Amino acid sequence: MDKIEHIGIAVKDLEASNQLFEKLFGTPHYKIEEVATEGVRTSFFKTGPNKIELLEATNEDSPIAKFIDRKGEGVHHIAFAVENIKQEIARLKNEGFTVLNEEPKKGADNKWVAFLHPKTTNGVLVELCQEINENEG
Amino acid sequence: MDKIEHIGIAVKDLEASNQLFEKLFGTPHYKIEEVATEGVRTSFFKTGPNKIELLEATNEDSPIAKFIDRKGEGVHHIAFAVENIKQEIARLKNEGFTVLNEEPKKGADNKWVAFLHPKTTNGVLVELCQEINENEG
Repeated sequence: MDKIEHIGIAVKDLEASNQLFEKLFGTPHYKIEEVATEGVRTSFFKTGPNKIELLEATNEDSPIAKFIDRKGEGVHHIAFAVENIKQEIARLKNEGFTVLNEEPKKGADNKWVAFLHPKTTNGVLVELCQEINENEG
Repeated sequence: MDKIEHIGIAVKDLEASNQLFEKLFGTPHYKIEEVATEGVRTSFFKTGPNKIELLEATNEDSPIAKFIDRKGEGVHHIAFAVENIKQEIARLKNEGFTVLNEEPKKGADNKWVAFLHPKTTNGVLVELCQEINENEG
């Protein structure tokens, strides 16, 4: 597992939070992207080699809507870059972690992603992510 | 504000969590450090250019004990590296953020640190940290 690729932060109002985080970082978000399958609209900020992803729910069934209902706004997940997501999933299952989706799925920002259940990771929702190679089709 | 210097994760049992995160990252922690003034014992893992800091309370009044009582184990704060912490504190106050300690204090890992109140940062406890220069005395 390599660097922190990004930290995902659940927010109620993406426009308001974009303004807030622009003040915090002193630099604006560089893109907005909707992931319809996950019911989220996201925006991205660069912080050196890392990114911050703000996540706003686009419907009531979105995992982000449920997260905010339970816990309020705040850190939702930490994503680590991996070179080979399938190998990492196999390694982590073997180590006793619960992988929420054993087949990687397409996430935001052109990534294959998989999540580990926070019950097996000290309460932290951990995402693995691997850049999608254009040649994969 | 530059890279994510580290993510702080509140844990109940540092030894157990060191073993867990060693399995997660595939590499062991590289140091343990107590910060008596904050009532915490910490351990550090490297993840590429970033670090993960596990935090265990050393007494009941520790902010980490109170955090776990309220929210359970999980992400406690995100720390961003800054070049000049006093300038950043002044800039962020001016932008409307609430700085919890306006004078930087000594944190773990040889850093000057300051925290922003999560009420002004979308529920995220943000730490600023600057490496302490040995010549400062």
